[in-house]
Amino acid sequence: MPDHGHTLAKEYYTSADVFARERDTVFGAMWFCIGRAEDVASAGDYIVREFAGESVIITRDATGKINAFYNVCRHRGTRVCEGAGGHSQRLQCAYHAWTYDLDGKLVAAPHFEEGEHFRKADYGLKPVACSEWDGHLFLNFAANPLPLLEQLRDLPTKFAAWDMASLKRGARVVYDVAANWKLIIQNYSECLHCPVIHPALAKVSHYLSGQNEPGDIASTYLGGKMDLREGIATMSLDGAATRHNLPGLSREDCRHVYYYAVLPNLLLSLHPDYVMTHILRPIAPDRTEVICEWHFTPDEMARPGFDASDAVAFWDLTNRQDWHVSELTQLGLKSRSFTPGPYSEREQLLQDFDRWIVAKIGPVAN
Amino acid sequence: MPDHGHTLAKEYYTSADVFARERDTVFGAMWFCIGRAEDVASAGDYIVREFAGESVIITRDATGKINAFYNVCRHRGTRVCEGAGGHSQRLQCAYHAWTYDLDGKLVAAPHFEEGEHFRKADYGLKPVACSEWDGHLFLNFAANPLPLLEQLRDLPTKFAAWDMASLKRGARVVYDVAANWKLIIQNYSECLHCPVIHPALAKVSHYLSGQNEPGDIASTYLGGKMDLREGIATMSLDGAATRHNLPGLSREDCRHVYYYAVLPNLLLSLHPDYVMTHILRPIAPDRTEVICEWHFTPDEMARPGFDASDAVAFWDLTNRQDWHVSELTQLGLKSRSFTPGPYSEREQLLQDFDRWIVAKIGPVAN
Amino acid sequence: MPDHGHTLAKEYYTSADVFARERDTVFGAMWFCIGRAEDVASAGDYIVREFAGESVIITRDATGKINAFYNVCRHRGTRVCEGAGGHSQRLQCAYHAWTYDLDGKLVAAPHFEEGEHFRKADYGLKPVACSEWDGHLFLNFAANPLPLLEQLRDLPTKFAAWDMASLKRGARVVYDVAANWKLIIQNYSECLHCPVIHPALAKVSHYLSGQNEPGDIASTYLGGKMDLREGIATMSLDGAATRHNLPGLSREDCRHVYYYAVLPNLLLSLHPDYVMTHILRPIAPDRTEVICEWHFTPDEMARPGFDASDAVAFWDLTNRQDWHVSELTQLGLKSRSFTPGPYSEREQLLQDFDRWIVAKIGPVAN
Repeated sequence: MPDHGHTLAKEYYTSADVFARERDTVFGAMWFCIGRAEDVASAGDYIVREFAGESVIITRDATGKINAFYNVCRHRGTRVCEGAGGHSQRLQCAYHAWTYDLDGKLVAAPHFEEGEHFRKADYGLKPVACSEWDGHLFLNFAANPLPLLEQLRDLPTKFAAWDMASLKRGARVVYDVAANWKLIIQNYSECLHCPVIHPALAKVSHYLSGQNEPGDIASTYLGGKMDLREGIATMSLDGAATRHNLPGLSREDCRHVYYYAVLPNLLLSLHPDYVMTHILRPIAPDRTEVICEWHFTPDEMARPGFDASDAVAFWDLTNRQDWHVSELTQLGLKSRSFTPGPYSEREQLLQDFDRWIVAKIGPVAN
Repeated sequence: MPDHGHTLAKEYYTSADVFARERDTVFGAMWFCIGRAEDVASAGDYIVREFAGESVIITRDATGKINAFYNVCRHRGTRVCEGAGGHSQRLQCAYHAWTYDLDGKLVAAPHFEEGEHFRKADYGLKPVACSEWDGHLFLNFAANPLPLLEQLRDLPTKFAAWDMASLKRGARVVYDVAANWKLIIQNYSECLHCPVIHPALAKVSHYLSGQNEPGDIASTYLGGKMDLREGIATMSLDGAATRHNLPGLSREDCRHVYYYAVLPNLLLSLHPDYVMTHILRPIAPDRTEVICEWHFTPDEMARPGFDASDAVAFWDLTNRQDWHVSELTQLGLKSRSFTPGPYSEREQLLQDFDRWIVAKIGPVAN
Repeated sequence: MPDHGHTLAKEYYTSADVFARERDTVFGAMWFCIGRAEDVASAGDYIVREFAGESVIITRDATGKINAFYNVCRHRGTRVCEGAGGHSQRLQCAYHAWTYDLDGKLVAAPHFEEGEHFRKADYGLKPVACSEWDGHLFLNFAANPLPLLEQLRDLPTKFAAWDMASLKRGARVVYDVAANWKLIIQNYSECLHCPVIHPALAKVSHYLSGQNEPGDIASTYLGGKMDLREGIATMSLDGAATRHNLPGLSREDCRHVYYYAVLPNLLLSLHPDYVMTHILRPIAPDRTEVICEWHFTPDEMARPGFDASDAVAFWDLTNRQDWHVSELTQLGLKSRSFTPGPYSEREQLLQDFDRWIVAKIGPVAN
């Protein structure tokens, strides 16, 4: 067989230095996915999210605009918001009552007089860049980031038919995985392991049916599609049709599932009748929180007897199988004996991903 | 308003290097408070205390003198005393029975013969400097420290009327606070936050009634007094008089509460009818143990129906409110976005404290 | 008394750097004990053991040979075996079904075609050197280690009479000890502490009856023997004979217990009627797992009413006393005040051990 390359050095998955570099050059420089616009559906809604060691407040202000801010009072550095979110016209620090508008402006600071040495206008909450694509919310910690759409390239066109902005969350499961975030992306990017660890998946989709898009080093997404087997309507334990397909899809689109890793941290799985997302939250070199959500049309969700459990049960089982082998890999590759192993032709996307990550964080000492 | 300065860089509160430097130049060079002389009331009493990574034995020997020693056997380095203390004429290591007098002298070392290569006189427990002010016990890890009274300056005169040496502990609560010890001192040093987080305190003492002593960089204490509201006898939930005032106080002293941070780690709160102390024990950059105690006259404590719970309940509530905002501040200021914020005129003591700490530990890289 | 030297600097017991160096020059370069050959008694048996941060698979293959391998799949680095062991003709990775023979050969790798860029012969499990002495299994992480017997020197001859290969495990207790592994060897190497902490032991063996072999810097074992008191048959709470003595022992051997530290990690205690072993597993500078086992003749174990509890109860009590003082020593010597203390003539083996360890890991900064 031709040479398909080798896996990366173990330091990419185990080193605290690499993890710190990723916080700069990947998660500190790129747009990453943080959730859905429906989480701040109405003016006055706000949510608080942790990512890459930062706590961020995301608000929908009175004008309907979505904003994001570091959760740090400009007076003494206190966290302004506790908890996961709420609804309010103002954000008030619990310590000395500095009060901010939902657009970040400081509107009250008791015992601070406006003057040469203090202007409220200088002490608004510090902004985090925030943008939306088709209902997905993205943040960017860079000071002057390129527009989100430049990072996404042709994805918005490619997946327009699914009209993801119109979907609503029907279920969510959060996983604490003892593996590096990149092992989770690599696991997602090949189905060579499917017949070994996913017998339920093999029943509804053949692992050799995958067709990947060619990747390149400039890519910010990696993916392809797999076929549903004859007579199978969607990915679930029995593969039966229990929901209508999404209204914008062609007959052809309904015979596939599209699996795309939208780098650096969103896994997008487009099914005929629902969209599944995984958001990866790197916690430590050997730990990642994964938030898995299932999104449906409001019409389906309004139907009497709507039930997402076939999709959730199927993927929850599959997720846990994937996390388990990813955790075994995290444990194994830290060995002093580890040397990179060979890729097969069915692991081409992993080699593309590896090139991308090396370009992002540079070589490692080993 | 005039310029009142800005808060310190976050590294002062988060850096392991700063924390290590403090162990040298603050807690390794200054007298710090460790407890009360009544803890070793009689000859033969000893206590064991942990501070700055060290375990220290404090004894009262047969002559009535209080001594302190590193809790390290001079033979193989074993901890000599386990537990929090006791009463004994000798301290014996549990490993090979090396035995020490309460003044630290090695008096027995089985199978070690006195001679050229071994003299018991060379192997006494290593001393830690120990001194007492008005019932408060202080230690100093420096080899040849200045006398305690030089560090305290005019405090002994200033607070002579409270006759703290005569008081006895009536209650103790220990707190584990997820914040740097300096944030706790800063929180103690201003009442700008009082109307926001301490509604019960605001009922008995007005937050703008505070009058601070001017500080200077050479200061080893920071503080001032606040007025009790009209009709209020002491700091408690209802402010009612339930105890006699301390016998040495003037009418004027009984209308105030005095709040002094005796650097580096004792917070001294002098009430008309009791003295409250907080001892801070820094555990990590983001963790401090706080031991809060309430001290009363033996006469009051001997009175039938003596009850400290009004004072304890009031301050326990207030303490927890203070630890909570200190913990929120510890969380917030570690953000990459954090930049020092402005102080108001009501935070003058904090600026004094900041100058003191910068003089002690020098500038930080940020 | 003559000069018997002083204990080591504390860094040998507390420093992460020293611990890392030991993983190279001691546990990465020497044969260390990992268990007993009876753990892989039959062809097809395998066990998985963790040591020095590595997971190792030990197999008995179809030819009866014992092999050891790093538990790392050569494809993506996944741990091949989970759990503590089992029985199988093949080891299969759970991720992509790479399959290995019990001698380590890669026998199946789905979707990898044999050819210029991939030869199964290049991707066997990586071996760890494995050897056996008298039933004890040893591993060596070095690439080309000297034979085990060169490290053991004259031990096999010296202890031939106990015929340890013929013994079977009768009991096992595992301890988690908060002390450096070297403190445990030092504790094992002197009985000066016995009258202080082991009253039950003092009843059956006098602490001054010990006679040590002279050690030297090239030694890989340290030890000696102690006498059983008159009328005492073995080490147990009452010292009574409840088992026959081992068949190969002389009358003289039956009046002693032999205590040998087989460096770096096996403590071998030879009793008239049983052999006790401690295997030390260093986990961190201040943490060691100790696996204590008691081995008997199959004849005794087959006898109706066989009961190991007298030996287990006696040594479990003694073990816990030893771990306790070792933990107190670990706590004490980390003090900033610690300076090395003097050894007595009854601590000669410790000085030998210290010389050995300094030769192995070099001087430390302190």
